[in-house]
Amino acid sequence: MRWLTSLLRLRRGALFDVWRGGQNYCTQSAEDSRPIGRYPTPYKKDLPYDIVELMEEVETKSGFLPNVFKLLSHRPAEFRAFFAYYDAIMNKETGRLSKSDRELIVVATSTANRCPYCVVAHSAVHRIYSKHTTLADQVTVNWELAELSQRELAMLKFAMAVAHAENITEEHFKELEEHGFDREDAWDIAMVSAFFAMSNRIAHFTDLRPNKEFYTMGRLPREKDKAEKS
Amino acid sequence: MRWLTSLLRLRRGALFDVWRGGQNYCTQSAEDSRPIGRYPTPYKKDLPYDIVELMEEVETKSGFLPNVFKLLSHRPAEFRAFFAYYDAIMNKETGRLSKSDRELIVVATSTANRCPYCVVAHSAVHRIYSKHTTLADQVTVNWELAELSQRELAMLKFAMAVAHAENITEEHFKELEEHGFDREDAWDIAMVSAFFAMSNRIAHFTDLRPNKEFYTMGRLPREKDKAEKS
Amino acid sequence: MRWLTSLLRLRRGALFDVWRGGQNYCTQSAEDSRPIGRYPTPYKKDLPYDIVELMEEVETKSGFLPNVFKLLSHRPAEFRAFFAYYDAIMNKETGRLSKSDRELIVVATSTANRCPYCVVAHSAVHRIYSKHTTLADQVTVNWELAELSQRELAMLKFAMAVAHAENITEEHFKELEEHGFDREDAWDIAMVSAFFAMSNRIAHFTDLRPNKEFYTMGRLPREKDKAEKS
Amino acid sequence: MRWLTSLLRLRRGALFDVWRGGQNYCTQSAEDSRPIGRYPTPYKKDLPYDIVELMEEVETKSGFLPNVFKLLSHRPAEFRAFFAYYDAIMNKETGRLSKSDRELIVVATSTANRCPYCVVAHSAVHRIYSKHTTLADQVTVNWELAELSQRELAMLKFAMAVAHAENITEEHFKELEEHGFDREDAWDIAMVSAFFAMSNRIAHFTDLRPNKEFYTMGRLPREKDKAEKS
Amino acid sequence: MRWLTSLLRLRRGALFDVWRGGQNYCTQSAEDSRPIGRYPTPYKKDLPYDIVELMEEVETKSGFLPNVFKLLSHRPAEFRAFFAYYDAIMNKETGRLSKSDRELIVVATSTANRCPYCVVAHSAVHRIYSKHTTLADQVTVNWELAELSQRELAMLKFAMAVAHAENITEEHFKELEEHGFDREDAWDIAMVSAFFAMSNRIAHFTDLRPNKEFYTMGRLPREKDKAEKS
Amino acid sequence: MRWLTSLLRLRRGALFDVWRGGQNYCTQSAEDSRPIGRYPTPYKKDLPYDIVELMEEVETKSGFLPNVFKLLSHRPAEFRAFFAYYDAIMNKETGRLSKSDRELIVVATSTANRCPYCVVAHSAVHRIYSKHTTLADQVTVNWELAELSQRELAMLKFAMAVAHAENITEEHFKELEEHGFDREDAWDIAMVSAFFAMSNRIAHFTDLRPNKEFYTMGRLPREKDKAEKS
Repeated sequence: MRWLTSLLRLRRGALFDVWRGGQNYCTQSAEDSRPIGRYPTPYKKDLPYDIVELMEEVETKSGFLPNVFKLLSHRPAEFRAFFAYYDAIMNKETGRLSKSDRELIVVATSTANRCPYCVVAHSAVHRIYSKHTTLADQVTVNWELAELSQRELAMLKFAMAVAHAENITEEHFKELEEHGFDREDAWDIAMVSAFFAMSNRIAHFTDLRPNKEFYTMGRLPREKDKAEKS
Repeated sequence: MRWLTSLLRLRRGALFDVWRGGQNYCTQSAEDSRPIGRYPTPYKKDLPYDIVELMEEVETKSGFLPNVFKLLSHRPAEFRAFFAYYDAIMNKETGRLSKSDRELIVVATSTANRCPYCVVAHSAVHRIYSKHTTLADQVTVNWELAELSQRELAMLKFAMAVAHAENITEEHFKELEEHGFDREDAWDIAMVSAFFAMSNRIAHFTDLRPNKEFYTMGRLPREKDKAEKS
Repeated sequence: MRWLTSLLRLRRGALFDVWRGGQNYCTQSAEDSRPIGRYPTPYKKDLPYDIVELMEEVETKSGFLPNVFKLLSHRPAEFRAFFAYYDAIMNKETGRLSKSDRELIVVATSTANRCPYCVVAHSAVHRIYSKHTTLADQVTVNWELAELSQRELAMLKFAMAVAHAENITEEHFKELEEHGFDREDAWDIAMVSAFFAMSNRIAHFTDLRPNKEFYTMGRLPREKDKAEKS
Repeated sequence: MRWLTSLLRLRRGALFDVWRGGQNYCTQSAEDSRPIGRYPTPYKKDLPYDIVELMEEVETKSGFLPNVFKLLSHRPAEFRAFFAYYDAIMNKETGRLSKSDRELIVVATSTANRCPYCVVAHSAVHRIYSKHTTLADQVTVNWELAELSQRELAMLKFAMAVAHAENITEEHFKELEEHGFDREDAWDIAMVSAFFAMSNRIAHFTDLRPNKEFYTMGRLPREKDKAEKS
Repeated sequence: MRWLTSLLRLRRGALFDVWRGGQNYCTQSAEDSRPIGRYPTPYKKDLPYDIVELMEEVETKSGFLPNVFKLLSHRPAEFRAFFAYYDAIMNKETGRLSKSDRELIVVATSTANRCPYCVVAHSAVHRIYSKHTTLADQVTVNWELAELSQRELAMLKFAMAVAHAENITEEHFKELEEHGFDREDAWDIAMVSAFFAMSNRIAHFTDLRPNKEFYTMGRLPREKDKAEKS
Repeated sequence: MRWLTSLLRLRRGALFDVWRGGQNYCTQSAEDSRPIGRYPTPYKKDLPYDIVELMEEVETKSGFLPNVFKLLSHRPAEFRAFFAYYDAIMNKETGRLSKSDRELIVVATSTANRCPYCVVAHSAVHRIYSKHTTLADQVTVNWELAELSQRELAMLKFAMAVAHAENITEEHFKELEEHGFDREDAWDIAMVSAFFAMSNRIAHFTDLRPNKEFYTMGRLPREKDKAEKS
C-alpha cells in the first residue's frame, strides 16, 4: 500500500523542510527515552514499510520526528488516513490561503481547544513560514487583539465560528467575501478548522505532547533572513 | 488512484447494506432537483472514475445516495481521504465496540454539536443496526436519561468528554475499564467522537441536509424481524 | 369540583382526538406494569371522581393515556391546576397561533431543557397537527437550521428568548410585529414557553418518561391524507 | 365560575395578611398612575366579578394590590389558572416546608433568572414570614454564602438544580433525605422552583415591576415583635 | 509611615460621614465577638500606629468600623496599599463621575462576582449618596432592567464589559462618548470596575462578611431630607 | 511624597534585575515611536519627580522600560498606588511562595482573562526566575496539562478558583494544606490572583501591549547558566 508515500513524496519538500530552521537537533535516542503520549509507540521494526519510509523521510528532512507521527503509528490504518487527509488540506496548492494562513488557523482554533501539541507545534511552523516571530504567541493569548490584518482577522473569525460548531450562515460568507475570500477559500479555511477540531481531540485522549524542538523553532531570525534584510 | 475503492470494496457490504431496510426508494432525479447543501454538486460525468464507482455502488446497495457523498465529491481529494478515514474507524472489525455502539456515539456527540445531517442519518443507521427503534431519539433529547445500559452510559460519557475537548485523564480510562473497555476500546470510542467533531463542522459550513429517507428508516420493525421474534 | 371537567369537555375533541392517528394501541395493562416516573401512580379507585372522569375520557379518545396524566394524579390539586392552565394556554381559540405553532414552541423550548417527555410527546402532537412528518425532528436537533418559514423562525426566536429567561425588550416585540404577530400573539408565544419552562422541570424531577406510542405517532401519512393529496 | 374564589377564601388569611406588616400604605391612585408592566391593566369595571372580588380582598387585607394581580387580569382565564396553581403550591398545608422555606426557594431561584418582581416581592414576604430581616438579601447576592442552616442549604441546592433544568437523579433525593426531607417534600421544593421558572419568565416578557412597598416591607422589626422579645 | 493617614485625612469627611445616616450604632464589643471572615483580626495594640489611627478615625466618623478595615489589618502593608489605591479611585475629585455613580458601578460589578460584602456595603453607600432608596437593590437583581438613565445604563454597560474581562474596543468608547463620557471618564469607570474585580476576589477568599449596619443604612429617608423636600 | 520610591528602592534589585537576561536592548526612541496602549504617555518632563526617578531606575536596571510603567504614568496617583501594591504582593519576602511561583500564578490567571501584556511579560519573568524555558508556554495553552509538580498544580488550582471569582470554601484550603501551603500562603496565592484580576482588566481597557523584548527573554539558557550546569 504505497499510495500515501507516493502522494506525499510530491509535496513533502514544501511540507517539512521548514522544520529545519533555527532549532538544535535533538538526538533520536533522547526522544525515545521519554513518553510522548498515553499509548505505546511501536518499534520501527514492527511498523509497515510505507509508514517507516514516511517517518524516516520526515525525520531526515526535519531533523527530528514530530511526535504525532510516532503516536499515530500505533494504528497504521488511521496513520495513513490521517496524513492523507492532512496532506489534502494543509498542502493544497490552489486558492488564496498561504501556508502561514493555514498555520495561523490551526494555532487559533487549537488554542480554543487548549491543545498543547497542536498549539506549540503549529506555532513553530507558523513562525517558520511567516517569518513573524511573535504573531502565533499573540494569537494564543487573544486572537482578537493580535496584530492581524483585517483579512487575517476575518479569516480567523470564520475559522473560530467553525471551531465552535456554530451555525454557519450566508452572513459568514459575505464577511469573508469583503476581504477577498471566495466560497472555495471559505471551504479551505473551514476544513482546516474542522480537521483540527478532530486533531485536537485526538491529542487530548492520547495525551500527545509536543517535541521540545517546537518551543524555540523560528523564534530568532535566521542568519540568511537577517542578511537578506540588510 | 484505486486505493480507496479497493479498500472499501472489502467491507462495503457490512457498511451499506443496512441502509436498505424500511425506507421507500426515492427517485434519484427528485433528489437532484433540490439543494443538499451550500456547495454545488458536480455532474457524475465530471467526477473521477473511482468516486463515481464508489457512489454507484453505495446507491445500488442502499437504494439512495446519502447526501454526504454528493457534497464531498466537490473536492475529490478530500472525498477520498474522508471516506478512507471513515472506513478505518467505523468499519474496524476488532475491539469491543459493535457497529451500533459506534452509531450511538455519533448520535450523542453530533447532538452536542447540533448537526442536522449527522444526527438524522446516524440515528437511522443506529435503528437499523440495533433494531432499537427509539434509543437514538432518546439520546438526541438527553443521553444521560436514555434507556442505556451502564456500559453504554460509560461509553457515551467518555465520548462526550472527547467531543467537548475536555482534558482526558487516567480517571476517564479507569471508568471505562470498570465497564470492560480496555485502552484500545477507549481509542476506538474517542476516535469516533473526534472524527465526528470534524464531520459535524463540515456539515455546518456546507449546510449539509439529510436525505428524507433517513427520517423514517428503521422506525418500524421489518417483517423479517417480526417473523424471527414470533 | 367539576370545573375542570366542564372546562375541558368543550374542547377536548380538538385537543386529543389527534392522538389516535397512526399508532398501534397498547394494552393498558402493559403500560401499568412499567414505571413511568419516580413517583407512585395511584389506583383509579383511589382518585377523585373528576380526575378519573377526565383520564378515562382522554384514554377513550386517544387510545392511550399520556403518562403526564398518571404522574400528576399523585397530587390531585396540582393535577387540576396544571391541566386548567394547560387548557387556557394550549387550547386558546383566539389569536394568530395555530395549534401546530404552539406544539412547535413546546418542542423547541423543551429541547433547550432536554426534557424527554415533552420533546417526544409534543413532537408527536406536532406531526399530527401539522401533517409535517420531520419538522419536529429537525427542530429538536437545531431549530435555527430547520425548514421553517421566516414567521416560524421569528416565533421560535422569541419563544427561546423567553425560555432562556432573557430580558425581553421592545426590540423583541418589534421583530415579532415584522412577521405579523401583535402583542397579544407575543403573550401567547411567551406563555407557552413559560408554561413549558415549568413543565420541563416537573418532568425532570419526576423522571417522567414518554409513552412508547409517541415515538411513532404521525410519522407516516395517514391513508386519508394520502387519498386527499392524490 | 366561583371555584377560585372559593378555593382561595379558605386560605387567604394566611396568604396575604403578612403583607400588612411594616410598609406605608400607598394610595391606590398613585399606583394606578404609573405603568407596572408592558401590557395594559384593565379597569375594574371591565373585569369578571370573581377576579374583582379576589383583587379587592387582597388589597383590603394587604393594604395594596401586588402588581402581579393587576398584570394577569389582562387575561382572566390565565389569571384564574395561575392563582389556583399558586395557591395549591404555596399554601399547601402538609409537609415539612414552612411558608418561609417556600419564599426562600422563590428568592433563590428567581435570582438565578434575574427577575425583578419575583425577587423583590418574595424577599419582602420572606422577611415577614421568617422575621429574618437580611437573609433574603444574602440569598439574592450569593445563596451558597448566606447564613443558612445545613437543611436550608440542601433545600436550596435541590431547588436550584430544578431551576437550572438539570437532570435530577436519585443522588439528589438522597441528599435531601439526609436533611429530613422525604420524597413528598422533594416534590414540594421542586414544584415551587418549577412554578417560579414559569413566573419569572412571565414577569420578563410582561416587564412586570415590583410595587414600591415591597422594598421596605419587613426590614424593621415590628413593634409587636420587639415587645415580644423583650 | 504617615502618608496614608495624611492622604486620607483631607478627604475622609466626604468619604465616611455619609455612613452615619439612618443606622443604629452597634456596640464595638458586639462586633468583636463574631467572626467577620476567615482570617484572624489583630488586636488594636498589635497594629501599627498609622493603621490604628485610620481605623479609629473611620469608626468615630461612621459610627462603626466596616469589616474590610479589620480584615485587611491582618496584613498592614497590603492594608496601606489597598486603601491608598481605593482613595485614589473612589475619592478622585475630577471628572464626570459622581460618588453615587461610582458606588453604582461597584454594586453592579460586585453582583456579577456574587460578592456579599461588596454588594451589601456599597448598596448602602449608594443609597446614602444618591438618596435613591431602591436603585441598588434593582441593580443587584438585574441591572439592565433597573430604573437607570440612559447615561447610567451606558456607564454600567462599560463597567460590566471590564468586569467580565472582555476585549475593550473603540466601539465601547464611542458608546460612552454618546452619553457625555470622555476617555478620562472611561478610565475612571473602568478603574472602579477593575479595582473591585480585585476586591471581590479578596472578599471571597477571606470570606469577608458585611457589617449588619449596612443592610438597613439609607433605606428610610432622613428627617432632614424629608424636610428639605417639603 | 517619597514613600513609594523609598519602599521600592530596598527591593528593586531583586525585582527588576532579572529583566536583563537574554534580551537585546531596544533603543528608547524606537519604543517611543509606536503606541503602547490607548491612552497618551506623558513626556518625562511632565511627570512628577518620584515617578521619573522610579522609571529611570527600572530602565537602567532592566535595559528597557516595561510598557505598564509608561501607561500608568498617565495617572500619577494610581501609578504610585499600583506599584506600591504590586511591591507588597510580588516582592513579599516571607512565606513559601518563590518568585517563580508567583509569576506562574500570574501567567495562569492572566491567560484565563486573555490578557496579552500580562501573559507575555510575566511568562518572560517566569522563564528568567525559574530557568524553565517552556513551562509558562505550557501553562498558557493548558495549565492542567503542563509539566507541573503536584504542589504547583494545587497552587494554580486555588489561584484559578480565585481568578474565576468562585466561592472559596474550607475544602479549598484543605487541598492546599495537603501540599504544604498554610493559610498565609493561601492568602499570598489568592492575593496575586486577585491583584492580576485587576491588572488584566486595566490592560484590557487601556489596550496595553507588551514590549517586544518580553517575547524572547529567557528562552535561551544564558551562558552563565550553561557553564554552571556543565
